[in-house]
Amino acid sequence: MKCTILTVGTEILFGSIVNTNAAYLSARLQDLGIDVMYHMTVGDNPTRLKELLAHAYLDCDLVITTGGLGPTQDDLTKEMIAEFFGEKVIMFPEQMEILTGWFKRWGRPMAENNKKQACFPEHAKILPNPNGTAPGFMLEKNGKLIFSLVGPPFEMKPMFENHVVPELKARQDHVLYYKMIKTHNIGESDLETALIDLIDGQTDPTFATYASGHECALRVTSARPTEEEAKAAVEEAMVEVRKRIGQFIYSEDGEDLSIVVLKKLIREHITFSSAESVSGGLFAKTVTDMPGISAVYDRGLVTYSNEAKMSELGVPAETLEKYGAVSPETARAMVEGLHRVSGSDLCVSVTGLAGPDGDGSDKPVGQLYVGVYYKGKTEVFDHFMRRNLREFIRNGAVVMMFRDIYSILQKRS
Amino acid sequence: MKCTILTVGTEILFGSIVNTNAAYLSARLQDLGIDVMYHMTVGDNPTRLKELLAHAYLDCDLVITTGGLGPTQDDLTKEMIAEFFGEKVIMFPEQMEILTGWFKRWGRPMAENNKKQACFPEHAKILPNPNGTAPGFMLEKNGKLIFSLVGPPFEMKPMFENHVVPELKARQDHVLYYKMIKTHNIGESDLETALIDLIDGQTDPTFATYASGHECALRVTSARPTEEEAKAAVEEAMVEVRKRIGQFIYSEDGEDLSIVVLKKLIREHITFSSAESVSGGLFAKTVTDMPGISAVYDRGLVTYSNEAKMSELGVPAETLEKYGAVSPETARAMVEGLHRVSGSDLCVSVTGLAGPDGDGSDKPVGQLYVGVYYKGKTEVFDHFMRRNLREFIRNGAVVMMFRDIYSILQKRS
Repeated sequence: MKCTILTVGTEILFGSIVNTNAAYLSARLQDLGIDVMYHMTVGDNPTRLKELLAHAYLDCDLVITTGGLGPTQDDLTKEMIAEFFGEKVIMFPEQMEILTGWFKRWGRPMAENNKKQACFPEHAKILPNPNGTAPGFMLEKNGKLIFSLVGPPFEMKPMFENHVVPELKARQDHVLYYKMIKTHNIGESDLETALIDLIDGQTDPTFATYASGHECALRVTSARPTEEEAKAAVEEAMVEVRKRIGQFIYSEDGEDLSIVVLKKLIREHITFSSAESVSGGLFAKTVTDMPGISAVYDRGLVTYSNEAKMSELGVPAETLEKYGAVSPETARAMVEGLHRVSGSDLCVSVTGLAGPDGDGSDKPVGQLYVGVYYKGKTEVFDHFMRRNLREFIRNGAVVMMFRDIYSILQKRS
Repeated sequence: MKCTILTVGTEILFGSIVNTNAAYLSARLQDLGIDVMYHMTVGDNPTRLKELLAHAYLDCDLVITTGGLGPTQDDLTKEMIAEFFGEKVIMFPEQMEILTGWFKRWGRPMAENNKKQACFPEHAKILPNPNGTAPGFMLEKNGKLIFSLVGPPFEMKPMFENHVVPELKARQDHVLYYKMIKTHNIGESDLETALIDLIDGQTDPTFATYASGHECALRVTSARPTEEEAKAAVEEAMVEVRKRIGQFIYSEDGEDLSIVVLKKLIREHITFSSAESVSGGLFAKTVTDMPGISAVYDRGLVTYSNEAKMSELGVPAETLEKYGAVSPETARAMVEGLHRVSGSDLCVSVTGLAGPDGDGSDKPVGQLYVGVYYKGKTEVFDHFMRRNLREFIRNGAVVMMFRDIYSILQKRS
């Protein structure tokens, strides 16, 4: 199957919202072996929406729309799809009942425009939305399949997983299997150069490289009639891939380094804590994104001021004065102080300059020091982020923290 | 001018990367009064890329592409644009020189495929990229204008701001002015109902409502020959808007509530600290996203374990035992303890359940308690997030923290 993801929403074209839905759906469709040919976004404009539908079905047999199913006047997706498919829009009584029930339970009067949300193309199959008032729908006609989903990601994702995935699986005649190989310490050009003959000669499995953020990845994919065949083809290719770039691989199933590290800490019951300056809580946030991490993550201290570094972590005033807040000495004092107050098995600290301006010392913006304490020993790592971009440096600080923890765990486990 | 944003990149269609470039460019083009009609994303496929270019120029006179300018074989944007515009691709000697310089400075050999990055359509104007090896370019021919920018956001943004914006401004014959009105405590349906006659009768200024996350916004826009005229038209409309929904407005220039609050804290020299459980550092991260916040932000403690709550904040063991970690009593003890250790003027704490599972107590997933200490008094706020979705609850926790701080500052300033 070939798919176009069609996003409807002026707020996307205005740039008020980032289109994370398209990314989510793309990743999941890839997993299912469905090729995503296009992302298209259009505002709540009847003519252009129908034009894009027509364009999409030139190359694709499947269209998934998100957005435009809300109660307001400019939410026109449903009406335009009905028109495109030559369907009338009718009221679905059982949907009206559900809708009325929601508002009763909330103790809020139902605005007149909400009633639109119980109307659908006559041959539509409803896709329930337990997380909001607008259901989605599915329509299949003349070899064209469409799923029309709601816009808010929190509502869209369960709708897709519970009601779209089963329909798609039932229509597949081949199975896709892939490995997403994550690497560090190698650039995209070098990665491609190392694999160029495989990439040039590819039919199945296929090889594709990606650069993103501070890392590169390689995807090895096979599509065969059965999962066993696809898996065997990928595994055979992986023997050669590992031979060439094995030393740079940290994950073969697409997991970020942060996930690889956190899973290892959980699996081996290594308790840990963090002390951040430059990254300002982004490390703690990344850690606590993972459900279940509370079993091993004790605390995260965001010691932004010098006072906080002294009182929370016992960093000596002399260290801050003599070497500055951004120094290997301060990173070391932070992580050793953190170990004293938390008693965690592993402690990590970071200090650095995210800019846009320097701190008056000789340290350049982009300079980072990461301290890692583990099994009675502290190591301090020196990193420099080439780009004077606050967001890039702060993200980079967290990537480096995980990278340094990873290398310490590799070395001393 | 009408614009299509055309993103080139298989990694976008694979869902490995979220298309933040399209959102950034859209927002900036809106600011410039340029209508964005479409976002389109296509893989590194020559035929489909040219087809989309043709489709884009049916409705638009401007296309901005991002991505596909890299050194690898599947980076074909430049070649396809040249073909579409009937141009030859030639080597630009001064670009080759710059490129060679980069690699010399880095002490790395230049891979053969990097040389592609010095080649452009013959009539292209180069858009320099001080942050990477691939420059962008601009081409104008037969009433069609195109800017082809690099993919990595850190490189794309300065390229757009420094080299595209001036070109676009020079071509504009009207000026757009708008106000983005941010509201809280009102839903999108109610907002629309309150303004329905304005929305229905709109020509210029125009009115549009947006729902996103935990809030709704309203955009009032005018496009006139001069900035003065556009501004006057919007201001006149705002008188009526304020009359109707004034009580729900917290910002008239599109700023998030977090920014409104943080700016106020900086402006009034109110020092502050935070103690987070459920949001796990996301509040601290949001705070430290703002450059200059170190003047008033002292520390952020992510006290994930009960031990950390006791040792860092002095939360009594009895409070945790009797009421549980997720309780108004614990939120109060956390924020008062935080004030003791930090001495900050304002302190905020949050505790709650983000799920997916409960904590064995009678508290449901989604329950949050926010404590705010200010001027010798503590208040605890009770919030419930209706959706059992970890990410939604954690984001909501941070929104509620800022909302509660805002209400305290409003009440007691």
